[in-house]
This record gives sequence, C-alpha cells and structure tokens, in this order.
Amino acid sequence: MVDHTVRSFDTDLETLDRHISEMGGIAEKMLSDAMDALATMNVDLAKRVVETDMRLDNLQRMIEDLAVRTLARRQPVAIDLRDVVGVIRISADLERIGDQAKNIAKRAAKIAGEARLPRAVIGLKSMHELAANQLKDVLDAYAQRDADRAKLVWERDAELDALEDSVFRDLLTFMMEDPRNITFCTHLLFCSKNLERVGDHATNIAETVVYIATGETLASEDRPRGAEAAAMLP
Amino acid sequence: MVDHTVRSFDTDLETLDRHISEMGGIAEKMLSDAMDALATMNVDLAKRVVETDMRLDNLQRMIEDLAVRTLARRQPVAIDLRDVVGVIRISADLERIGDQAKNIAKRAAKIAGEARLPRAVIGLKSMHELAANQLKDVLDAYAQRDADRAKLVWERDAELDALEDSVFRDLLTFMMEDPRNITFCTHLLFCSKNLERVGDHATNIAETVVYIATGETLASEDRPRGAEAAAMLP
Repeated sequence: MVDHTVRSFDTDLETLDRHISEMGGIAEKMLSDAMDALATMNVDLAKRVVETDMRLDNLQRMIEDLAVRTLARRQPVAIDLRDVVGVIRISADLERIGDQAKNIAKRAAKIAGEARLPRAVIGLKSMHELAANQLKDVLDAYAQRDADRAKLVWERDAELDALEDSVFRDLLTFMMEDPRNITFCTHLLFCSKNLERVGDHATNIAETVVYIATGETLASEDRPRGAEAAAMLP
Repeated sequence: MVDHTVRSFDTDLETLDRHISEMGGIAEKMLSDAMDALATMNVDLAKRVVETDMRLDNLQRMIEDLAVRTLARRQPVAIDLRDVVGVIRISADLERIGDQAKNIAKRAAKIAGEARLPRAVIGLKSMHELAANQLKDVLDAYAQRDADRAKLVWERDAELDALEDSVFRDLLTFMMEDPRNITFCTHLLFCSKNLERVGDHATNIAETVVYIATGETLASEDRPRGAEAAAMLP
C-alpha cells in the first residue's frame, strides 16, 4: 500500500515534470518568434505568438490543478513537498515569460507600419540572446536538479540588467537625435523591459531549483547586480 | 476528532485571511506613497517604499508556507480547497502589486534631479486613483467572498487600459514637442505601465474571488477591454 502510494506520487511528479519541460519549450519558441517578428516586421508571425500564449496558460492551469491535487492526496513531506511546490512556482514563471513574449509580439504587430531605425534593434537582439541562454540553462538545471548550475544562472542576471541599462541609454539618445525616432524607440524601450523581465523570471526559476535541490532559500539581496541596476532602475 | 480537524482548518484559514488583509493594506499604502514620492520628488519617502517591499515579500512567503502545510495536513476538498488555493494566488498578486509600487518609487528617486514637466504627471495621478479603487474594491470583495462585486472590478479594468492608452499618447506628444522632455517622460511611461499592471493584478484577484465563491473560472477572452487595448498594446 505504501509502495503503491509512493509509485503514484512518482507518476504524478513525472507528469508534472513533462508538462514543465513542454511549457519551457513553448516559452523559448514564443520568445525567439516574437523577436523575429519584431526584427522583420512579420505581423503573421507576431499573431501566431499571441495565439500560442493560450496554450501556455492552459498548461499552467493544468499543472497547478494536478500539483494541488497531488499535495492534498499524497501529503508529501520534505523533498517531495519541495518538488511539488517548486513545480507550481516554475510553471507560474514560465507562464509569465510567455506573457513577455506575447507583449513583444503585440508590439511588433502594432509598430509594423511605423518608421523604423534598424540600428536601434541591435541591442535588443543581444538582450534576447542573453535571456534565451539564461532560460535554456535554468531549464536544464531544473531537469537535472542541479543547484550549482542554477546558481550560475542566478548570478549572471546582472549581465542582462547591465545590458538593459545600456540599451535604455542608447534608445534615449536616438530619440533625442531625431523626434521622428521617438515612437519606434519608445516601443523598443518596452520590449527591452520585457526581455529584462524574462531574465528576472529565469532568476526566480533558478532560486526555485536551488530550493528544490537543497531546501535552501537564496536571498535576493545577495545577488550580484550591474552597478547601475544595484543603485536604481533604469 | 472530525470537529477538531474542522476547527483547526478554520483557524488556519482565518490566519491566512488576516495575512492577506495585512498584505492588501501594505500594498495600498506602498502604492500611494510611491505616487506621492513621484509627484513631490520625495526621495526619502521613495526609499521607505522600497524598504517596505521586503515586508510584503516575507508575508507572502509565510502565507505560501502556511497554505501548503494546510493543504498537505488537512486535505481540504471543494470550497475549502478553493479557499486555500485562492489565498496562494491572491498573495502572489499582492506581492507583485508591491513590486509595481517599488518600481515607481525607485524611479521617483532616480529622476528626482531631472528636469520636470508637472502637467505630465496629471494623467498618472488619474491612473493611480482608478487603480487604487480597483484594489480597494477587490480586497473588499475578497473579504466578503462577494463574486458579483469582484466581477464589477474585473469588468472595470477596461477603463484603466483606456486611460493608459491616452496617457501614453500624451507623453509621446510632450516628448516630440521638446527633446528636453524625453528623459522625464520616458520614466513616466514606465510608471504608467506599472499602474496598468496594478490593475491587471486587481483583475487577477477578482478572478480568484469568483473562483473561490463559485468555483467558476472567468475567461479572459470575455473581459471587456478598451477599444485600443483590445486590438493591441500600448
């Protein structure tokens, strides 16, 4: 009877893990498609990203339902309890990464007709590269319950913050150079914020992976930050 | 024995409710202080808001821990299960409302030295008024488990979206009129986004209240939106 219960719990957990990995894949794809749509002004692609977000929302609801039922039925303790709580948190972060990608895609569709400034997009591409790497690494760290790898992701978030700060300054400069750049660059400002928040969610996931693997809670105060980011926002 | 269990569950729930109401009060205060700091360039007040955010984070962690333990120990079903899951969701939304207030406060401190354009702040004040009302109403709806009142909050979010759209356009106009307005107005753009997101979280809470009270899930697709907001972001 105990064996049966244990085995059912493991099955629940495997199902949850599979859904998390599916959510991760969808979120990564949404993000790169949204950036492609922004760079190439591809309105159709942008719309597909927006539509895909519903799949991510549904998956999150499914994960949350299953996790809550698992908690109530199996009453897991210690590491098993951390695993299930961790899954709930990670699915919420992945869902919000999807929201960021959706926001970029909506903006790509919205500004498709505006005057463009291609060099203003370059900094955003670098931000996306960094953010996508962070997301990939933290999903791998989760799959392997690798706390050390998760901590590296957590520490590297400072790079993305610093890059956002520099993109922010560049965009402001373009706007001051020529008022005709203002509308386009303003929209890019929001996209750069979206990418920075993808990094924040990857950092949250890293904290959750460390919590699952070790029971330890990382304190945000200890996280290294870009010199600018530490003092104040851009 | 059953009675004892039931009573313990009720005690857990009352404790959770009390913490939610405390979080709500702190979030409301943070938001109005952040807006005051922004309007009056009060750096000290802004710093206090940033510090207060830690209290909100701690409360959320405490609520989440207690809720998870309640789920695992008491195995609640039906409405009781919805109540506990609801508390987890609402505390997460309140924590993120605190983050929005913190972001506004950080920005208020950052731009205290910049050239200002007082008329640009007026639209933000109206947005804050609307958002604060939504938050107050949805907290009342939660306290009374009043699904109808929650639905009104949910429907009224369209007003805030429409107002943000108009603030966005105004700020862009100020920037185009005079490049010296660009830095200040850019920061205000982000603040208006923060306020819009406060409204989104109030809407999420409204959905959770309806779910707790009725078991029904409101579909985001059905929510009325501002004409602009429906088509595309700002």
